[in-house]
Amino acid sequence: MFQLLKQDKNTKARRGTITTEHGVIQSPFFMPVGTNATVKSLLLEHLLEFNAQIVLSNTYHLFLRPGMDVIEAAGGLHQFMNWERPILTDSGGYQVFSLTQFRKIKDDGVQFKSHIDGSTHFFTPERVIDIQCILGSDMMMPLDVCAPYPCSLKEAKNSVEKTTEWAKRSKDHFVRQDVRAPKQFLFGIIQGAIYKDLRERSTEEILDVNMDAYAIGGVSVGEPVEEMFKTLDWVLPKLPKDKPRYFMGIGLPDQIVKAVGEGVDMFDTCIPTRYGRHASAFTAKGKIIIRNQEFAKDFFPLDPDCDCMVCRKYTRSYLRHLMHSNELTGLTLISYHNVYFYVNLMRKIRAAIEEDRYEKFQMDFLKKYGSELI
Amino acid sequence: MFQLLKQDKNTKARRGTITTEHGVIQSPFFMPVGTNATVKSLLLEHLLEFNAQIVLSNTYHLFLRPGMDVIEAAGGLHQFMNWERPILTDSGGYQVFSLTQFRKIKDDGVQFKSHIDGSTHFFTPERVIDIQCILGSDMMMPLDVCAPYPCSLKEAKNSVEKTTEWAKRSKDHFVRQDVRAPKQFLFGIIQGAIYKDLRERSTEEILDVNMDAYAIGGVSVGEPVEEMFKTLDWVLPKLPKDKPRYFMGIGLPDQIVKAVGEGVDMFDTCIPTRYGRHASAFTAKGKIIIRNQEFAKDFFPLDPDCDCMVCRKYTRSYLRHLMHSNELTGLTLISYHNVYFYVNLMRKIRAAIEEDRYEKFQMDFLKKYGSELI
Repeated sequence: MFQLLKQDKNTKARRGTITTEHGVIQSPFFMPVGTNATVKSLLLEHLLEFNAQIVLSNTYHLFLRPGMDVIEAAGGLHQFMNWERPILTDSGGYQVFSLTQFRKIKDDGVQFKSHIDGSTHFFTPERVIDIQCILGSDMMMPLDVCAPYPCSLKEAKNSVEKTTEWAKRSKDHFVRQDVRAPKQFLFGIIQGAIYKDLRERSTEEILDVNMDAYAIGGVSVGEPVEEMFKTLDWVLPKLPKDKPRYFMGIGLPDQIVKAVGEGVDMFDTCIPTRYGRHASAFTAKGKIIIRNQEFAKDFFPLDPDCDCMVCRKYTRSYLRHLMHSNELTGLTLISYHNVYFYVNLMRKIRAAIEEDRYEKFQMDFLKKYGSELI
Repeated sequence: MFQLLKQDKNTKARRGTITTEHGVIQSPFFMPVGTNATVKSLLLEHLLEFNAQIVLSNTYHLFLRPGMDVIEAAGGLHQFMNWERPILTDSGGYQVFSLTQFRKIKDDGVQFKSHIDGSTHFFTPERVIDIQCILGSDMMMPLDVCAPYPCSLKEAKNSVEKTTEWAKRSKDHFVRQDVRAPKQFLFGIIQGAIYKDLRERSTEEILDVNMDAYAIGGVSVGEPVEEMFKTLDWVLPKLPKDKPRYFMGIGLPDQIVKAVGEGVDMFDTCIPTRYGRHASAFTAKGKIIIRNQEFAKDFFPLDPDCDCMVCRKYTRSYLRHLMHSNELTGLTLISYHNVYFYVNLMRKIRAAIEEDRYEKFQMDFLKKYGSELI
């Protein structure tokens, strides 16, 4: 699955490839989030235009709507959404555990109420694998128990134990699937909240299950950024070099640059599209809020350092006007730029690692961006 | 400005060209509506993809937001929105007169309150020309008085008289503009509501002003379709053959096909984008409502007769899912198809006229569409 091509000389950054049924992915990489089988405000054509390598979608959401019968009839998620490149699907664990009032963890799974119509459903580790087999995901996440922030030691311990137990059941069920394509991969998810001992324990237990790749979950749930990066210190040294490492739901551009330097390979976040819908655009010099008066007659592109379609064609003044006029076109254009910004950042990151200059790249980026992570 | 290339043998349909500073337009044609300097839910790239020849924008809206200072600083509307093809701008007469509670017609113009912030403004015929000179519109509409439906004979008569008086003032001011580009054109607008005498009178009076082209205004304001088509019977025979004819704000696809057969050259309507945002898609067999249950597992394109990007790539099932999931991508995709449907319909209409088969084309289209206009 994973081939480590290059280890940067001065940092822990790595350059590799992941080979799937739907193509080879160059790592480190960013996955645009397509929860409902589309990346919000964008067309899939846009993702091809700037060569996004993969999209992430969500088991929980697709299970509830349009439902597995529709996706099965379409021939799987790739066909349903007309996306021929790789897809990673989240297990829905995070979503289900966010429904604090509407879910009940039981020994063999979790019962929850749909956020759409209140109907009751039951996810077991096995069922979540079955659903992802129907989706035809290239990379699957197992059902896990995501602890909130803040959470007690006891709560975090329960989450680790349940996650390990369910990881084993997921793996057992996964290897029994005759139907799965030869290159579907199952990840292990490491929990443990902000507790060093628990993170280390979870890492060891999940490594024992022997998964195709490893993800750090239960991060970016409201904890301070320093806490988030501590989990990398605790977990990454224990992970094997020959398997991909995924920092789930991270993060802002400077956080990604920092995490790559620690040895992370995979990222996803809805930040570029969510910020786009709220008129915030990423630039090499940090975030700008395009609604502001200062941009009324600013005829420069969103990011003068960017060569995306939006920056080549449209001005801050025009985009500000679209946002003030509540034109959906504005959301699409700013989201386009933001997702491009992420995808292109990963391209630059890969080039820097290849040329053994990641340390300088990271420092230059963080300085120019005005990051507090220096 | 206008060259009549061909008169269909069996109907009154005409085929021509309009030459502007920003390119030659093949008629009959449809103008996608870009009120706020964008076509709702679409990118201008999409319009280029399917070769839309022109967009329509709106003086009233652009005057209020972003304001003339911004558009002047950008170098005009073409530069501001990055659209290099022709632009027609409506005068804002229709919008201002829709603000019934918030406008006051005076002898020399109309005072109105902004729908955005309630601020008071005053439009005169001269000012509206000045604004459109700043916009750099290829085709300008003069300030007119649009009578509502229903309206009394007296009200309709006032609207005709004021429209004529303002048309003269618009023309006088227009010819005095040194700044205007050599190929900016001024239209005359014919009013008269549903009254034959008034429509005929307005036609004669506006013809006397000698405009570059003629528009039938005050239609599609709520009157029955038969009343709308009667105005064509009254007005078109009086219009010169060597100038373009514009049926303002019309209409549904079958209405356009019918009106072309009566000799109309130009159309605009927000129907394709508005319907798109409400999940209604046009097909050769009429409108379909994509949210309906019947499309849940329908893996055909929106319109099996259509070759647009959306119909080549996406299924009804997927588009239905996007709309039910409130994904903006769905609005964009259905709007894309609908605007393409209109633009492509005009292409087929032009081919039919060129080959002297418009009568059959019209009959075939209306039958298949299930139109009541047969």
